[in-house]
Amino acid sequence: MAYVKMKVDETRAFCEEVYVRHGFTREEAQRIVDVILMADLYGFESHGVQRMIRYHNSIIRGHVDPKAEMDIIFETPVSAVIDGNKTMGQITASKAMKMAIEKAKQHGFGMVTVRNCNHFGVAGYYSRMAADSEMIGFCSTNTEAIAIPTFGKKAMLGTSPIAVSMPADPYYFWFDCATTVVPRGKIEVYNKRGDALHEGWAADEYGRSCLDAEHVLDNINAKNFGGIFPIGGESKDTGSHKGYGYGLIAELFTGIISGGHTSPHVENGGMGDTSFGFAAIDYGIFGDKKEIRDRMSTLLRELRESPAADGQEKVYTPGEPEMISKADKEKNGILVNDKTVDEMRMIGEYVGLVLEDYIKVTEIDQ
Amino acid sequence: MAYVKMKVDETRAFCEEVYVRHGFTREEAQRIVDVILMADLYGFESHGVQRMIRYHNSIIRGHVDPKAEMDIIFETPVSAVIDGNKTMGQITASKAMKMAIEKAKQHGFGMVTVRNCNHFGVAGYYSRMAADSEMIGFCSTNTEAIAIPTFGKKAMLGTSPIAVSMPADPYYFWFDCATTVVPRGKIEVYNKRGDALHEGWAADEYGRSCLDAEHVLDNINAKNFGGIFPIGGESKDTGSHKGYGYGLIAELFTGIISGGHTSPHVENGGMGDTSFGFAAIDYGIFGDKKEIRDRMSTLLRELRESPAADGQEKVYTPGEPEMISKADKEKNGILVNDKTVDEMRMIGEYVGLVLEDYIKVTEIDQ
Repeated sequence: MAYVKMKVDETRAFCEEVYVRHGFTREEAQRIVDVILMADLYGFESHGVQRMIRYHNSIIRGHVDPKAEMDIIFETPVSAVIDGNKTMGQITASKAMKMAIEKAKQHGFGMVTVRNCNHFGVAGYYSRMAADSEMIGFCSTNTEAIAIPTFGKKAMLGTSPIAVSMPADPYYFWFDCATTVVPRGKIEVYNKRGDALHEGWAADEYGRSCLDAEHVLDNINAKNFGGIFPIGGESKDTGSHKGYGYGLIAELFTGIISGGHTSPHVENGGMGDTSFGFAAIDYGIFGDKKEIRDRMSTLLRELRESPAADGQEKVYTPGEPEMISKADKEKNGILVNDKTVDEMRMIGEYVGLVLEDYIKVTEIDQ
Repeated sequence: MAYVKMKVDETRAFCEEVYVRHGFTREEAQRIVDVILMADLYGFESHGVQRMIRYHNSIIRGHVDPKAEMDIIFETPVSAVIDGNKTMGQITASKAMKMAIEKAKQHGFGMVTVRNCNHFGVAGYYSRMAADSEMIGFCSTNTEAIAIPTFGKKAMLGTSPIAVSMPADPYYFWFDCATTVVPRGKIEVYNKRGDALHEGWAADEYGRSCLDAEHVLDNINAKNFGGIFPIGGESKDTGSHKGYGYGLIAELFTGIISGGHTSPHVENGGMGDTSFGFAAIDYGIFGDKKEIRDRMSTLLRELRESPAADGQEKVYTPGEPEMISKADKEKNGILVNDKTVDEMRMIGEYVGLVLEDYIKVTEIDQ
């Protein structure tokens, strides 16, 4: 797969116009694109502009309705439950996290859950919103079932990420990981390259570790048994039950308390039936905020300064590689694979835009 | 190592008397023993009566002061920070979780952190207290540094468990796991048996996976480089960075927001300088409590009823094996290894008790 580079500002302008022409307000379009580009900037290619084709299809097929409005269906001073009503995930998710932050500003804590919504992009975008408001942020989402429980062989849980953020200097603590050992995208990349999977990544239809990426994907697509293992892999010896537990914690804070669908009941692609959970904690409820932030900064610095294993360059802290990636890409442009460029061009044509009017695509050597 | 069985009631009576004679009130002694015996009942031998020798040594050496009182040093309607003041961990931890539960009853959410305290036993004891009050419970503690960060070689984080509980029928969701791939006790067991460790469990002084249990333990005890890998093992390919992140989340909710020591600064054994975090969320802030509980029960049942992988008996849900263990041990007695029996006898003699006056030890074939 060949890659090109696109300037961030140019990409932002094009994508924003795409969503405006799809019927979103300018402000909504800006939010959608901000979430998408954060993924590309942070180095999460799978959740960046390459996902625009899926959003495009959801919109033109009516799974996402640009004119729909979310409903608040239950609320207390520290909580709310929202029905997503087929809205675009990024828009309702941002509003939900803003509500959680406002509640936390007033009461120290706020938690807002969303049901019946669409894919919201990178979970860490929303936990970061809380950190930008000087709070601890939490975010999770469930997904269609693709992960098998420890000792099982049927996909019952999502790749459901858990994201936690907290301000620190010079880099926030920013953690955002799927509760599976690898995301589906990694299996797809290995399949394209024809490489064998690692032991403990994915299961065949008997629930046994399987190194054949194509076979695993065929099973997943056909909804046969098999799927991806939780963090910790196949065996309790490698901690499979721990990742399985974190997958259930994600489910608890999304589908369960929102009253939405749980992962086994989320349809193919999670279109309109995905649940989210957002929480903000104002850490000022534990004392002087600057002191608390400084303690986090100190711990993270101590980790970065701790000696690297032989053969490794350095110890990173969660969020540091993403900031390094962002600095590079803001200067040099984001990396976009050629298939995605074609898709973006097609999406542009669909809404009456010419990609090249907005973005000067730069070929690169790889 | 040979094992004997002890009746739960008899063991409870003996242990309670030990702590009363050490200077705790009857109520305090009951609480300490309740935490200890939950570990044995649930099958967490490492945190059961076998840990009494460490508590005994902490008390007679003055690291734990039975007459000390905790101080509340910061409080809001939804939060508090407690100084443990060398109190016994189980006592202050229970009070802190009770405070969190009371706050959640009034405001929907409560979070209480503790600094400068001693080992509190099983984290899941406290998260379960919240579940027993029909809430979602969270508990974590840091420990002395024994886990190396991804790509590092120096122990910088604790085995720091994260526990989350929620009521469900017939079994609670009850999750309590170290954020390392294995606990230290597992390395010790492999060493005693002379077995090679699994790949990705522990690192040598160069930060590389090491299968020699004795070598790993020697390094840990000598505070050389090396230690246990996070959940996910050695490599990012197996998810090491995910376990590392969860280790930092544990640190955030313990040492960082309590103003206590972070794991790199917790002394050998965590005597008097360990931090805890407790949270309770009344899930009634998201709607009808019975409906929410029923949804969790349904998801867990669906998991248990999902097909087992070939060669496996069944799919368990977090908390189910512990309830099976508890039912067995309440009927047949807890399993105690012979070294621990000797230690319990010695502790009894120290405080003027004869073990056999309380407990009829039953030999078993293994």
